[in-house]
Amino acid sequence: MNKDELRNMLEAVARGEVSPDEALTKIKLQPYEDLGFAKIDTQRGIRQGAGEVIYGEGKTAEQLIKITEHILSENEKSVLITRLSEEKAEALSKSVKLFYDKVSKIGIAGERTEKKDEGNIVIATGGTSDIPVAEEAALTAEYYGNRVTRLYDVGVSGIHRLMDNAGILADARVVIAVAGMEGALASVVGGMVDCPVIAVPTSVGYGANFKGLSALLSMLNSCASGVSVVNIDNGFGAGFIANRINKMKG
Amino acid sequence: MNKDELRNMLEAVARGEVSPDEALTKIKLQPYEDLGFAKIDTQRGIRQGAGEVIYGEGKTAEQLIKITEHILSENEKSVLITRLSEEKAEALSKSVKLFYDKVSKIGIAGERTEKKDEGNIVIATGGTSDIPVAEEAALTAEYYGNRVTRLYDVGVSGIHRLMDNAGILADARVVIAVAGMEGALASVVGGMVDCPVIAVPTSVGYGANFKGLSALLSMLNSCASGVSVVNIDNGFGAGFIANRINKMKG
Amino acid sequence: MNKDELRNMLEAVARGEVSPDEALTKIKLQPYEDLGFAKIDTQRGIRQGAGEVIYGEGKTAEQLIKITEHILSENEKSVLITRLSEEKAEALSKSVKLFYDKVSKIGIAGERTEKKDEGNIVIATGGTSDIPVAEEAALTAEYYGNRVTRLYDVGVSGIHRLMDNAGILADARVVIAVAGMEGALASVVGGMVDCPVIAVPTSVGYGANFKGLSALLSMLNSCASGVSVVNIDNGFGAGFIANRINKMKG
Amino acid sequence: MNKDELRNMLEAVARGEVSPDEALTKIKLQPYEDLGFAKIDTQRGIRQGAGEVIYGEGKTAEQLIKITEHILSENEKSVLITRLSEEKAEALSKSVKLFYDKVSKIGIAGERTEKKDEGNIVIATGGTSDIPVAEEAALTAEYYGNRVTRLYDVGVSGIHRLMDNAGILADARVVIAVAGMEGALASVVGGMVDCPVIAVPTSVGYGANFKGLSALLSMLNSCASGVSVVNIDNGFGAGFIANRINKMKG
Amino acid sequence: MNKDELRNMLEAVARGEVSPDEALTKIKLQPYEDLGFAKIDTQRGIRQGAGEVIYGEGKTAEQLIKITEHILSENEKSVLITRLSEEKAEALSKSVKLFYDKVSKIGIAGERTEKKDEGNIVIATGGTSDIPVAEEAALTAEYYGNRVTRLYDVGVSGIHRLMDNAGILADARVVIAVAGMEGALASVVGGMVDCPVIAVPTSVGYGANFKGLSALLSMLNSCASGVSVVNIDNGFGAGFIANRINKMKG
Amino acid sequence: MNKDELRNMLEAVARGEVSPDEALTKIKLQPYEDLGFAKIDTQRGIRQGAGEVIYGEGKTAEQLIKITEHILSENEKSVLITRLSEEKAEALSKSVKLFYDKVSKIGIAGERTEKKDEGNIVIATGGTSDIPVAEEAALTAEYYGNRVTRLYDVGVSGIHRLMDNAGILADARVVIAVAGMEGALASVVGGMVDCPVIAVPTSVGYGANFKGLSALLSMLNSCASGVSVVNIDNGFGAGFIANRINKMKG
Amino acid sequence: MNKDELRNMLEAVARGEVSPDEALTKIKLQPYEDLGFAKIDTQRGIRQGAGEVIYGEGKTAEQLIKITEHILSENEKSVLITRLSEEKAEALSKSVKLFYDKVSKIGIAGERTEKKDEGNIVIATGGTSDIPVAEEAALTAEYYGNRVTRLYDVGVSGIHRLMDNAGILADARVVIAVAGMEGALASVVGGMVDCPVIAVPTSVGYGANFKGLSALLSMLNSCASGVSVVNIDNGFGAGFIANRINKMKG
Amino acid sequence: MNKDELRNMLEAVARGEVSPDEALTKIKLQPYEDLGFAKIDTQRGIRQGAGEVIYGEGKTAEQLIKITEHILSENEKSVLITRLSEEKAEALSKSVKLFYDKVSKIGIAGERTEKKDEGNIVIATGGTSDIPVAEEAALTAEYYGNRVTRLYDVGVSGIHRLMDNAGILADARVVIAVAGMEGALASVVGGMVDCPVIAVPTSVGYGANFKGLSALLSMLNSCASGVSVVNIDNGFGAGFIANRINKMKG
Repeated sequence: MNKDELRNMLEAVARGEVSPDEALTKIKLQPYEDLGFAKIDTQRGIRQGAGEVIYGEGKTAEQLIKITEHILSENEKSVLITRLSEEKAEALSKSVKLFYDKVSKIGIAGERTEKKDEGNIVIATGGTSDIPVAEEAALTAEYYGNRVTRLYDVGVSGIHRLMDNAGILADARVVIAVAGMEGALASVVGGMVDCPVIAVPTSVGYGANFKGLSALLSMLNSCASGVSVVNIDNGFGAGFIANRINKMKG
Repeated sequence: MNKDELRNMLEAVARGEVSPDEALTKIKLQPYEDLGFAKIDTQRGIRQGAGEVIYGEGKTAEQLIKITEHILSENEKSVLITRLSEEKAEALSKSVKLFYDKVSKIGIAGERTEKKDEGNIVIATGGTSDIPVAEEAALTAEYYGNRVTRLYDVGVSGIHRLMDNAGILADARVVIAVAGMEGALASVVGGMVDCPVIAVPTSVGYGANFKGLSALLSMLNSCASGVSVVNIDNGFGAGFIANRINKMKG
Repeated sequence: MNKDELRNMLEAVARGEVSPDEALTKIKLQPYEDLGFAKIDTQRGIRQGAGEVIYGEGKTAEQLIKITEHILSENEKSVLITRLSEEKAEALSKSVKLFYDKVSKIGIAGERTEKKDEGNIVIATGGTSDIPVAEEAALTAEYYGNRVTRLYDVGVSGIHRLMDNAGILADARVVIAVAGMEGALASVVGGMVDCPVIAVPTSVGYGANFKGLSALLSMLNSCASGVSVVNIDNGFGAGFIANRINKMKG
Repeated sequence: MNKDELRNMLEAVARGEVSPDEALTKIKLQPYEDLGFAKIDTQRGIRQGAGEVIYGEGKTAEQLIKITEHILSENEKSVLITRLSEEKAEALSKSVKLFYDKVSKIGIAGERTEKKDEGNIVIATGGTSDIPVAEEAALTAEYYGNRVTRLYDVGVSGIHRLMDNAGILADARVVIAVAGMEGALASVVGGMVDCPVIAVPTSVGYGANFKGLSALLSMLNSCASGVSVVNIDNGFGAGFIANRINKMKG
Repeated sequence: MNKDELRNMLEAVARGEVSPDEALTKIKLQPYEDLGFAKIDTQRGIRQGAGEVIYGEGKTAEQLIKITEHILSENEKSVLITRLSEEKAEALSKSVKLFYDKVSKIGIAGERTEKKDEGNIVIATGGTSDIPVAEEAALTAEYYGNRVTRLYDVGVSGIHRLMDNAGILADARVVIAVAGMEGALASVVGGMVDCPVIAVPTSVGYGANFKGLSALLSMLNSCASGVSVVNIDNGFGAGFIANRINKMKG
Repeated sequence: MNKDELRNMLEAVARGEVSPDEALTKIKLQPYEDLGFAKIDTQRGIRQGAGEVIYGEGKTAEQLIKITEHILSENEKSVLITRLSEEKAEALSKSVKLFYDKVSKIGIAGERTEKKDEGNIVIATGGTSDIPVAEEAALTAEYYGNRVTRLYDVGVSGIHRLMDNAGILADARVVIAVAGMEGALASVVGGMVDCPVIAVPTSVGYGANFKGLSALLSMLNSCASGVSVVNIDNGFGAGFIANRINKMKG
Repeated sequence: MNKDELRNMLEAVARGEVSPDEALTKIKLQPYEDLGFAKIDTQRGIRQGAGEVIYGEGKTAEQLIKITEHILSENEKSVLITRLSEEKAEALSKSVKLFYDKVSKIGIAGERTEKKDEGNIVIATGGTSDIPVAEEAALTAEYYGNRVTRLYDVGVSGIHRLMDNAGILADARVVIAVAGMEGALASVVGGMVDCPVIAVPTSVGYGANFKGLSALLSMLNSCASGVSVVNIDNGFGAGFIANRINKMKG
Repeated sequence: MNKDELRNMLEAVARGEVSPDEALTKIKLQPYEDLGFAKIDTQRGIRQGAGEVIYGEGKTAEQLIKITEHILSENEKSVLITRLSEEKAEALSKSVKLFYDKVSKIGIAGERTEKKDEGNIVIATGGTSDIPVAEEAALTAEYYGNRVTRLYDVGVSGIHRLMDNAGILADARVVIAVAGMEGALASVVGGMVDCPVIAVPTSVGYGANFKGLSALLSMLNSCASGVSVVNIDNGFGAGFIANRINKMKG
């Protein structure tokens, strides 16, 4: 609600066309449910086009159950839970219907969305060890109804593996490039496509990798121009952004 | 050219419908002009939807003139030059027609693109000192024919300045959030909109800012989900990506 | 005791009005009890307005028991112990009366202070995962007799949760802002209130969070002016400082 | 304005006791003046108890003049400008009445506040080279009407210089400890007083000082409990916070 | 296949001497087997002179078994597996013939290469704790048929141990210098020989060693000129490069 | 042996006064025993005034037993072993006579040196948690026959604890200052004494302590002039250097 | 000279077959000329296969002249000087015959070596701005008599520029990959060739490039196996090592 | 003055043997002169065995003149000034008698101490570029009356230069090892001598040297046991400590 709309509504209140209570509700605009330890954003779906997502790390099983149940009891068919350990998933599955993927640590409580196969998001990884992060991105994008094409183990040390799949890359509306070590995949992919590239550095590697720092810096300094970057191992964030871009109207 | 296309063409060669020379040209696929010190990517426009861009820093005035003249003599009406110092701009302007903006250090050689006013990219800054980076983004986006709305000095220490412009943010197809210091602007904006947000950390600040590191880490760790990040002070990159996203077909 | 007071006292000794032993006691000024492995500051209460506090990490259960018993046997009704693991708490509770809070790892040996409800310290967190640090601050502040208002899970990605509680913030004499990830909460809160803000970065997050570094740098670079910062996860320090400020006389 | 107040006002509008325009004004709450490149927060004095302050670095002389003139033309007798270079100060002094201090790079445009000598803020430095930062703090605190006691060059390598001034420290309501190198001053002072201590690391030093990092980390890890920290060289921030604390009512 | 060869082949296709299918196969040039989670580079031996190597870390036992079996079933007598934990080695040994070395965590599946005793690679370590990394290098070099001379525990704090073995160093075609802590071994060795030196920093040490950073920076800054560096603890990489150099024809 | 001495000896060989074998022995100068995985420096006692010391970390129990037995069988009454885990100590104690201290992880194999009470080394710690590192220093110094005075828990947050022991510090020939957190102890002690101060940063602390980095940088930047620094947690190194200094002849 | 050789020679001295003076000369083995401020290694050519090189930075023009003249007066036809500023080059050229290249800051005093065209070292750069570092490598390699092929501006954002030159890379005996920004060139080249690759990170870039750190970490973490790394901007080191490898006998 | 001495003196006051004023003077113990911007420690000579030293950086010429004149007017024949720029030296020389050395930036105001040639401090450097730091150490040590032997340009890349001077090292009572780049000199020297070694990392180098960080970490992690470290480029500190050690009585 911007200022002009607010003025209009206030004039309607003055004219008696809108009751103070109705106006209050509308001005309130951004409600949330308060569980004390958490404030659940119940209208995020309206405001941001995507419902509340639960970051599972650092929350107790009890907190996760309460938050999940509350959201499902309100107005959501399902809720996505990231970084959900197997133990917590098991505890949670006793209270709510839960889909759980061990590789990506993704849980989906409630009814799982059926793919609507909109557009095409290509997710490429440098190696096999990057797959857990890539799957976090893939399941997130699929949760929001996107079609996902997986292109795993196409790291630049064998550039032909990537070249040979140039056609798949060319068909993408968004590419998510997931790589650890030196993270060069993002730059090479960035130079091959004309769509947005989301780069996800992973903590795969050792030594001077410094838990993902090498890939992160590499991707931020990409010599290819269409590349933006999310946090180390943040597959969810990449999937979420790819969904937003893929759903854009022309 | 993917494998199927290659097979088709080779069969055409076998049938005598395509000469070996024609085939060779087509297989070559990725031509460039070689100036010795630079290899100009003359088909990037076809391949990536955006022509060659020149990064001005670290190139001599002589090199810039040669590269620019070559590109303009080939197949481009104009070429964008970033990080172009005033001295080099002056030297360059003697050889080619040049638009130059001192604030952003952007130069456009050749015919400047007239805005096509497609979509709407909103560029917000935390403060006045972030404007040079924001203008690099803005002029880049405008160069590619996008409509840009500037929303400067809306940093989170006076959150009402941002709230008051919620309407402008709501109209955006892409938001570019440019901020130094603690870079909190990206997270707050990220929570207010339902479109992709490109965050640009700037080196504005001092001390524990460590030349933009604080804003960079802040933006990479954004608690809002739709935010991806480019390099410190990389206004060009943000404008380039915003263009790609804004131009997407539904 | 400053130089003038010292001169006066020495003149009193010369006049025989004060005995050498009395003078010695007074000059000593800062006594402590020496347990060999620890030197307990028995007059900190007089000198600093707050009794000795025990930092539990890195001390053995045996050392903790000896120090605690000594303090309680001397002149303190209770003693606060921070970073007390459950194992050590259990060992300690066999020797002394102990209140223990698992979430914050805070222990209070002896008689727990009843709240005197002075002033009002508001403690806000960005998310649910920041609560352990926030509770360390809250229990510390309450231990010293302050009234604490908890405002948890009001991170900036849903700015309305914070805006909606602007009234609570306005009533604060001190605000403690506890946040991990990008730590933007401190800047936004800092711009909304006219009282001192103590920012506590937490190690909540992953990847480029670098164990709290992102929130720490963010808070140190806050664009809001009334914010000072304590160490990562240092809830105790924030509660201690908030107590000092809240107890100030006008 | 909280929700209850909003409801009351809206009911007053419904009853015709408050006009829509009046209501609009009140709901707006946080107005600012928009100069395009800057959005001046004209009601910060009301909201935060301290008027707009201008951070001089990264702004052109032209921008500084426009912002300063606008603020003075509105509702402020004076405005504080920090990090104002001598060149810009000279340019600015041609347009407005300006007090300028070369050591601290502080400028005060308009009528300089006369000291009200409220409370007592003690500012201590480790060495002579820390004085520019200390003076930024001191002039800021004095600008807001506080009494400031300067205690310079009392670094811990000659601990008697500090001990000898224990009486001055004991009289403080707030202490600002300014030190570079190892920044130990903050910890030692923190152990001597019972009032809040604001620590300001400075970039004074060389080598493994890493432009103030050593003092910053030192102060964040202070073993004394009442110490909070601001950014490296941020004298202004320390003075601003000290003012807030000093002005608290009992 | 370079451009001239491509032209020749295309002309052969045009002449009917080569069928389109044959041409397609040859143009493909860089084939690989796609296991979904891995793309095995089956012609690396032809292209790079050394077969596919498996990096064991971050791959599940199941993935390792599938990849190993696939490679052995194709065209390789053996395959080298690095960073293979004892658990995975045990699992793998149930499916394929496996040589396993606990110290270096090296596994060789299939037929182990017998040494061909070509040239001479000397591997020196600073201390006993560096041996696991040195053995990774040694076994890798031996796997590719090189003669390896081990020179362990010759760190610079007892420089005579190194001097006394100057003859062994003088006989080397390549030296691999493996050291943790301050990594000075690389510089001293670098000054004693006239052959290439590959430096391997190890994470041996503690404190300001920062997990190998001290040795890494030390080796990168070597004042001796013939030293190049691989990643921290990367014994495999050093052995691989030493093999390439040792096998060079005069 | 310098060049002149070498010439003299060679002339003596030429004159038949010294046999070639005698000359060889003397030129050899730096002998060691080679166990393959370790090269034991059997003449370090002659060359450096202190026998071989074994760094226990990263060596297997088997290696430790072999090295220890070899040294004891040669020419040493005892050998010092640092960073010896309890498990390895137990294994070792089955083969050789072993004194073991759990707090410092120091082991002494063979006959333990009786203190000769030479000079006086004072070891001060900031807190109780620094004691393990301090004891490593203390036992090392005592192993070499020095008198050690322990002054524990005298951190600067209660500066009187340090002041009150000024007499003990004044009696020292060398002071070892052991502290974590902000490491300010080194600077304050450095300003109080006229003897060399060895500063040992410890990893005690959390958050922005970064595993001892804060204390390390603090001590390197000490504003007191007589302070030199060893690695984080390197109690052994400090004890070893203190021994060298304490044993100096006037 | 190893121990056996020493024994033999000493026996020859005893037999009178070798005079003490002759023996002395041979034992001396590693002579140098002492200029006081510099000790010139006059036999490095014999010992290391390459004469003394002068690192020009941090030396005064006077020192450079003395060192150069001394070397040329002794036994060298020419001497290579790196990092030679234009000012110092001008000063030096007044005293000795000097070839100087402004781009690479390389100077060659005395007679410039004519290329012997041995082997083939390919030097590739990511961009035009990397050329100064590449030329330092190229001129160094040519100074030692190697044939050098320059392949500039073949960065991975336009991967076809690299692919198109696969033939040139295939002909190399050593490849030097010079790149700034994300440094991905090293990994891609590393996967394309079967010869050693020397990677040179450059400081080309800005922001999160951190003066070459991003390229450095990237190259150290290369997923391609044949890559070793030298210091940031160390073109000389790369050329020197490439020379050593190229000159190896089969 | 310790507690017992204080009791004795107070009893003497009570007996009238000591006047209150005399007692006051003695208790004061640590006097200083207060210039406002500096507090000069006039009894440091008594307390610490070495007079006040002035750190010239960050002080204005005016401040330096005032401090120097004050010290000379009181009780010092001369005063050492470090990091004194040529400009300030020139200004200072107009007010006081000044010896100034351009290389080390050392100034000595007043009467320069004549060498007393006590003991022997050897100062070794890795290269010619380290000489300014080494000279700062040398002149400091000489100022305090020590004999200094300079051993410059003996870096480990030509280890024979060091070996050849083993005799000079063997004669040292203290060695100061000054080196940049990888700083290996400290470890090698540390293994050759039986006296204390003070290591001074210098900022000589480039790239991954990170302004001295590589040498600093290298020296802190020295595998030789008798090495302690001072700040990067801190020649003064090393000379000061070496003086303290050299002057020790047996």
